[in-house]
Amino acid sequence: MEKNPASVGIVKTEYFTIEEKIQLESGVQFGPVQVAYETYGVLNEQKDNAILLLHALTGDAHAAGYNSENDKKPGWWDDMVGPGKAFDTNKYFVISSNMLGGCSGTTGPCSINPDTGKPYGLDFPVITIEDAVKVQKKLVDFLGVKKLIVAGGSMGGMQALEWSIAHPDMVDAVIIIASTSRLTAQGIAFNAVGRNAILSDPDFNNGDYYDKEKQPERGLAIARMVGHITYLCEESMHNKFGRRFQHSDRPNFDFNVDFQVESYLEHQGRVFVDRFDANSYLYITKAVDYFDLAAKYGSLKNAFEKTNARFLVMSFTSDWLFPTSQSKEIVQALIKAGKDVSFCEIESPCGHDAFLLEFETQTKIVKSFLAKGEPND
Amino acid sequence: MEKNPASVGIVKTEYFTIEEKIQLESGVQFGPVQVAYETYGVLNEQKDNAILLLHALTGDAHAAGYNSENDKKPGWWDDMVGPGKAFDTNKYFVISSNMLGGCSGTTGPCSINPDTGKPYGLDFPVITIEDAVKVQKKLVDFLGVKKLIVAGGSMGGMQALEWSIAHPDMVDAVIIIASTSRLTAQGIAFNAVGRNAILSDPDFNNGDYYDKEKQPERGLAIARMVGHITYLCEESMHNKFGRRFQHSDRPNFDFNVDFQVESYLEHQGRVFVDRFDANSYLYITKAVDYFDLAAKYGSLKNAFEKTNARFLVMSFTSDWLFPTSQSKEIVQALIKAGKDVSFCEIESPCGHDAFLLEFETQTKIVKSFLAKGEPND
Repeated sequence: MEKNPASVGIVKTEYFTIEEKIQLESGVQFGPVQVAYETYGVLNEQKDNAILLLHALTGDAHAAGYNSENDKKPGWWDDMVGPGKAFDTNKYFVISSNMLGGCSGTTGPCSINPDTGKPYGLDFPVITIEDAVKVQKKLVDFLGVKKLIVAGGSMGGMQALEWSIAHPDMVDAVIIIASTSRLTAQGIAFNAVGRNAILSDPDFNNGDYYDKEKQPERGLAIARMVGHITYLCEESMHNKFGRRFQHSDRPNFDFNVDFQVESYLEHQGRVFVDRFDANSYLYITKAVDYFDLAAKYGSLKNAFEKTNARFLVMSFTSDWLFPTSQSKEIVQALIKAGKDVSFCEIESPCGHDAFLLEFETQTKIVKSFLAKGEPND
Repeated sequence: MEKNPASVGIVKTEYFTIEEKIQLESGVQFGPVQVAYETYGVLNEQKDNAILLLHALTGDAHAAGYNSENDKKPGWWDDMVGPGKAFDTNKYFVISSNMLGGCSGTTGPCSINPDTGKPYGLDFPVITIEDAVKVQKKLVDFLGVKKLIVAGGSMGGMQALEWSIAHPDMVDAVIIIASTSRLTAQGIAFNAVGRNAILSDPDFNNGDYYDKEKQPERGLAIARMVGHITYLCEESMHNKFGRRFQHSDRPNFDFNVDFQVESYLEHQGRVFVDRFDANSYLYITKAVDYFDLAAKYGSLKNAFEKTNARFLVMSFTSDWLFPTSQSKEIVQALIKAGKDVSFCEIESPCGHDAFLLEFETQTKIVKSFLAKGEPND
């Protein structure tokens, strides 16, 4: 089947289980952990042509292609992954896994706690970006990978940074898009509002809602609506919706949806609750809030001292959630630490979401960056 | 009592009732309307030294001084109103009233519907900024005012603009601070999330909650938290809170409040529900969303053609909710319409809230603007 001439086609999500307990950053010993992952392309004999893709807040292992003939949409970074694409599956063995704490096949709060036979809920331990990378490392070892390139947008970029620091002898190159080494106070604030909406939903029931008639859908939808405002920007909202009304050319004079932008947000909230778990939203936003390389290592320069990788850092002009200034902080610290870094700020009206949309420009830049590390033909 | 040497002292909130029905913009005939108001200073014999202050989203009639000896805080613009202050009560008769639809003494959804003997709830008609100004006009006529200056920040600025257009023969001067002639799509989006949080709170009970055991406090608190993020800016949040933890120097590894910025937002949400009504929040944000002078008059220039007032427009560098670009739109339209306009962008790290905080700079600019219209000594 060739839905798209450069598609990786039909792929199956695979599962790998880490049986031994993992030492989490909080001090908790946790396990077993199942990891959902997909791979595209073939690992070479030297086991050094791997690219590990790291998803954003609500992503999953399904980065490219289709899981079945009937899928309407391909994976979340399908524009970037496939034969001849930015992450060229003719050359590279591309790996994508669902993050620890997620709800798409990797162990998270909705998974069954073997000690109780019931979903973990809030008994799931609070996790960090570092913990997520620990799990990914086990997967990569299991797959036999010796050297790899790590790449991710948004929260995925945080994981890529952590990879380069935690496993300097393994990571050859790092691609960070629309990301940061630590969230701003404003970023924490937006996440806090989303968590508050979930925690205060009476159907949340202290996280124990999986077998209940009602789920905390209202709180999760509001969290998603807040999130979507931050993923776009005023310019993209203006271009997409402006002040246009949804149903007519004048106000409803009631509290139904009036404006197109309201309709869009409500739709985003509604569809999100069908695919995402409220507890996972709590855990993963918390992991994002905690991530702070400068605090952990004394300075961002110190954090990067040990890395041996080449870096590509990209940001977007209209991204106000993870603004260019934060990418520049990373770049400056890498330069101070004497590392090899390329930086590009891409002109885009798409806000933070640009890393999922501006694939043509990203493709050119990523290809050129990767080519520098490839053997000459 | 002189809590503050330049305070207006103890003031009493007064009430005025419009008995006849008012024609609202939606077409509904509505009344009676009670208006809560305060005045500071004395109306002169010519009845032309009045300044009408117009409050922002959640403000009230109590702009200056103290309502009782025991009040801990003065009115919301006390720094700007009093003897010798920007709005100098030695010279001017300053009026402030609670907006139609509010919950601080002026008729709103929490008021008793005389037809049923119960609070209006969602039977209260949807109102607009224009409707609010109609009510204010009745109050000003009742007080015997012939000529006036109108001044307001944020939503108050919208009302001031409407005043200058609706009553060109009465308005001598207009002071607009951190305001706009229409909300951006992003602004509507933030309001929509706030309304959604209230509407989806199970205790909202379709707006009929006044005699119930539980009120929609969770939804209203979330709406307020979202609002507060937009009233500050990343710079002010960084300066106030940064990434500092609330209780220790390391993460809690739980879902209690970790960061200072979370604690601040939760506090703001908590105290807000004690002083504000969820239904009023719905109605007033809707009025703000609807306000659009360019759409109503064909263009902003057309909207201002009839005004006879002098204008002072002020914005703040870090205000991203009502950004300087929107103030400039107003200024440019006024210039095109041949009106007298002064504009000042004030350097401030306080975000949108600057109009409530940067009183020293505002005082200088307002005094200088008002002096131009005052008779020489």
